[in-house]
Amino acid sequence: MKWWGWGDPHHRAELPSAAVDALRDELGVRPEDASEPVELAQVSMPDARPVPAAVEEAAGEVLGSLEDRVRRAAGRSYPDLVRLRSGKLDSAPDAVLRPADAGRVAATIAACAEEGVAVVPYGGGTSVVGGLDAVTGEHESVVSLDLSLLRKVDLDPVSLTARLGPGLTGPQAEEALGALGVTLGHFPQSFEEATIGGFAATRSAGQASSGYGRFDDLVTAIELTAPEGRMRTLDIPHTAAGPALREVVLGSEGTLGVITDVSCRVRPAPELRIYEGWMAADFAHGREIIRDLAQRHEMPDVLRLSDEEETRVSLELAGTEGLAKRALETYLSLRRRRGGCLVICGWEGERDSVRRRRSLGQAHLQRGGAVPLGSRAGRSWERGRYQGPYLRDELMDLGVMVETLETAHTWSRLDELYRAVGSALRGALGERSIVMCHLSHAYADGASLYFTFFTRARPGEQLDQWRAAKTAACEAIVATRGTITHHHAVGRDHAPYMPAEVGEIGIEALTAVKERLDPAGIMNPGKLLPL
Amino acid sequence: MKWWGWGDPHHRAELPSAAVDALRDELGVRPEDASEPVELAQVSMPDARPVPAAVEEAAGEVLGSLEDRVRRAAGRSYPDLVRLRSGKLDSAPDAVLRPADAGRVAATIAACAEEGVAVVPYGGGTSVVGGLDAVTGEHESVVSLDLSLLRKVDLDPVSLTARLGPGLTGPQAEEALGALGVTLGHFPQSFEEATIGGFAATRSAGQASSGYGRFDDLVTAIELTAPEGRMRTLDIPHTAAGPALREVVLGSEGTLGVITDVSCRVRPAPELRIYEGWMAADFAHGREIIRDLAQRHEMPDVLRLSDEEETRVSLELAGTEGLAKRALETYLSLRRRRGGCLVICGWEGERDSVRRRRSLGQAHLQRGGAVPLGSRAGRSWERGRYQGPYLRDELMDLGVMVETLETAHTWSRLDELYRAVGSALRGALGERSIVMCHLSHAYADGASLYFTFFTRARPGEQLDQWRAAKTAACEAIVATRGTITHHHAVGRDHAPYMPAEVGEIGIEALTAVKERLDPAGIMNPGKLLPL
Repeated sequence: MKWWGWGDPHHRAELPSAAVDALRDELGVRPEDASEPVELAQVSMPDARPVPAAVEEAAGEVLGSLEDRVRRAAGRSYPDLVRLRSGKLDSAPDAVLRPADAGRVAATIAACAEEGVAVVPYGGGTSVVGGLDAVTGEHESVVSLDLSLLRKVDLDPVSLTARLGPGLTGPQAEEALGALGVTLGHFPQSFEEATIGGFAATRSAGQASSGYGRFDDLVTAIELTAPEGRMRTLDIPHTAAGPALREVVLGSEGTLGVITDVSCRVRPAPELRIYEGWMAADFAHGREIIRDLAQRHEMPDVLRLSDEEETRVSLELAGTEGLAKRALETYLSLRRRRGGCLVICGWEGERDSVRRRRSLGQAHLQRGGAVPLGSRAGRSWERGRYQGPYLRDELMDLGVMVETLETAHTWSRLDELYRAVGSALRGALGERSIVMCHLSHAYADGASLYFTFFTRARPGEQLDQWRAAKTAACEAIVATRGTITHHHAVGRDHAPYMPAEVGEIGIEALTAVKERLDPAGIMNPGKLLPL
Repeated sequence: MKWWGWGDPHHRAELPSAAVDALRDELGVRPEDASEPVELAQVSMPDARPVPAAVEEAAGEVLGSLEDRVRRAAGRSYPDLVRLRSGKLDSAPDAVLRPADAGRVAATIAACAEEGVAVVPYGGGTSVVGGLDAVTGEHESVVSLDLSLLRKVDLDPVSLTARLGPGLTGPQAEEALGALGVTLGHFPQSFEEATIGGFAATRSAGQASSGYGRFDDLVTAIELTAPEGRMRTLDIPHTAAGPALREVVLGSEGTLGVITDVSCRVRPAPELRIYEGWMAADFAHGREIIRDLAQRHEMPDVLRLSDEEETRVSLELAGTEGLAKRALETYLSLRRRRGGCLVICGWEGERDSVRRRRSLGQAHLQRGGAVPLGSRAGRSWERGRYQGPYLRDELMDLGVMVETLETAHTWSRLDELYRAVGSALRGALGERSIVMCHLSHAYADGASLYFTFFTRARPGEQLDQWRAAKTAACEAIVATRGTITHHHAVGRDHAPYMPAEVGEIGIEALTAVKERLDPAGIMNPGKLLPL
């Protein structure tokens, strides 16, 4: 991954220049707003404090170069990227520890607890909520615990479950499982870089979550290596033996310990994958189609609905290479419809199952008044499904602020949430901004909303601009009683909203577990719960 | 409910006398083994200790008659029934409190915490794991907190969720929801008596769990009134905001506080319900058919597979009124198959959906070599679906010990678990016993096994006999790394096995939450966690 941005350094998102010009014009971005990341050698950060020898010995491998530290100093939120690109890091881990196995992990955190060293577990480094911030808390120093060497893959082909090491990235896991004829089916936008441990620790949701389930749905058993000891839930399909400890470890974001082993349901690799586009009359009509599909339990495996603004911007950015805008416009106007909202549907699996379920889904879409755009729109989405973060790097080069955030609510309050967050963001960002949204991860009782916003990044003021927008959106979410996060997790950015999310007694319950499993308070300080 | 047994006092399970004779003969049950429950007035139990006036005032309504106390002194496990029928109760609540609403519940448990009174929450009284035992713990007295007045029903017809009071019984909830055109679809064998709060507190699973989901799947939000305060999770379809507190309250069995409000997903009341019988060649073939259906995600809504022994006994007990045994035997022998394992399948929902899914399921059953028995077998199952506990009362009258227990494992270890538990039970019960099993609640990665066993109850030794069998089965489950309970919960009977289930650190985590939310330790002492 680029140390200052997203993904493969040799890959760039390609944008039609006309689209870029239109976007800059719309946002009032000036040529002088353009910027480039500093050179790695120019990055300034606090000097590394010494890490106790006992900790280094326990870990086995210690990385201490500037690059090692910079790479683990931040996640990939907009403010993370602003800090990285500017070369001004307020904090960084004092050292990076890379234990070879779960035994080394246990020894390392035991030594850290003994010596008073804070520990930030590190998977793929893709947190967008400040989950990787090198917070020392009450301790003397802080280390990044890199789990990339824990990459076991062990398939149970009869039960269709696989034990996976937390350090496997999405592609590593899929490659190993693919060779055994199965797939996890977990494809979030962060797929290329994020890891199994991170998926579990943050309750990640993939683009095909309607079909395969969110990551927390896939997990059947989990092992937590906490300062107080190791806990592993049984490898069983379900139990009524008390509160679900698996569900306590899921979403714990490194604050209780390190996730050292994850058992997941897998599925036979699909014979067939079909993605296609549809155009709904408007966001409300599209939403009702999805609600109908979800409540009939006939959801496609992939389903997302862009609002009018996201549809417009997607078509512009895709240019003639993508959705063939001109052809599309002609087609839609022939059908006496303009604008509308883009729906992407996908079905994966055995040929018969895909055919059957697709035909059901298409009938519902048609009944809901949506117009088919065919497979070209689907292929375009598929090509671009992991491109968002690459595109962000390009836009940041130009001087555009790009950020995303997500929430969820029941169907009966989803429109209220949509309006409240959109209005809060537009209010904070000002007139020359774009606030767009898609609905994805639909359930029988509700759905998530995923907002993306663009505005001109005012040089030197980007962090303040971001903070204002983020705060406005979070306050709108809390006021509407939506969730502060559907799948990005809490980290440091959402921690102040946790009391609103779970209430005072909820905070007490979470704190009680934390204090019992991590009495020294070394595990990922300042994340999940407010310090 | 009968104070000494199950259900409507005017209803009796009818058994063909030939079947009863055959069963008694097989088990060696003698005419002098027959017994009847004592009269209510003859029941002896410890005298009621005084309950502090502040507690009674907080609750509002206090019930203190012999019958009130006897009715809340035990659940409906075999040892509970032995004690009730013999009229010898070791323990009973000192008083029964019946608060009118959630505010009264909060005030009552606050007063109990202040005064040092243990609280046993009481829903339908159907625990089969000692969940209602009036354990005083370290306190002076113990009260039963009857939640039957909390019966709110509030439907969100757009989101298809309903807020339900914990005191609603299954039929009360279904009647109210049915009038609004929806159903929970939660039909455990205890349906007639058990309550919404109990379903949530014990992670109940219904007979149609493959279609509608287990009860814990249905719950979208939950409110816990704990001694330290009230906690309510948000009404949202999903969140990534940390460990799932909803999943901490689910399965908490009254040990953290009282569940005072439950939001559940509901579904449109089905247009059509079809149940039918099939005969699989043997248990292993039947199991593979179900695994195939579960892993293709094409499960019927109801699916259970009896092993050879359960099939034989079911056909015997059903007699000519039920499955038309003679016709069935002729039919099967025509197809050159004898014995075999009974499969019950059911589909519910819209007509089209039922037709489509049934045709898929039937194709899989046929491919797996199962033989259709038609809808008569399905209707027979439907008629008898809530009869098990009535039947138990009849058999106990005759002097037969009848008990059930359940567990679950992954598909790859299910056969090992099946053999281990069956062999442990047969070993403990001796030769003249019947140990039979069905597989139900199937998942992509595994399934539950539900054992029923009969033997001659030796007068005066029933509790020892039961203890030996239960212990042998639990030890076999633990040795095989299955779960100690798939849907009956932990209560007092399984509490000793919780360390094996969740490990030492798991116990620590559960204890930490318990101590924080219930620092005086008044909530349902001795349940879930060993005292």
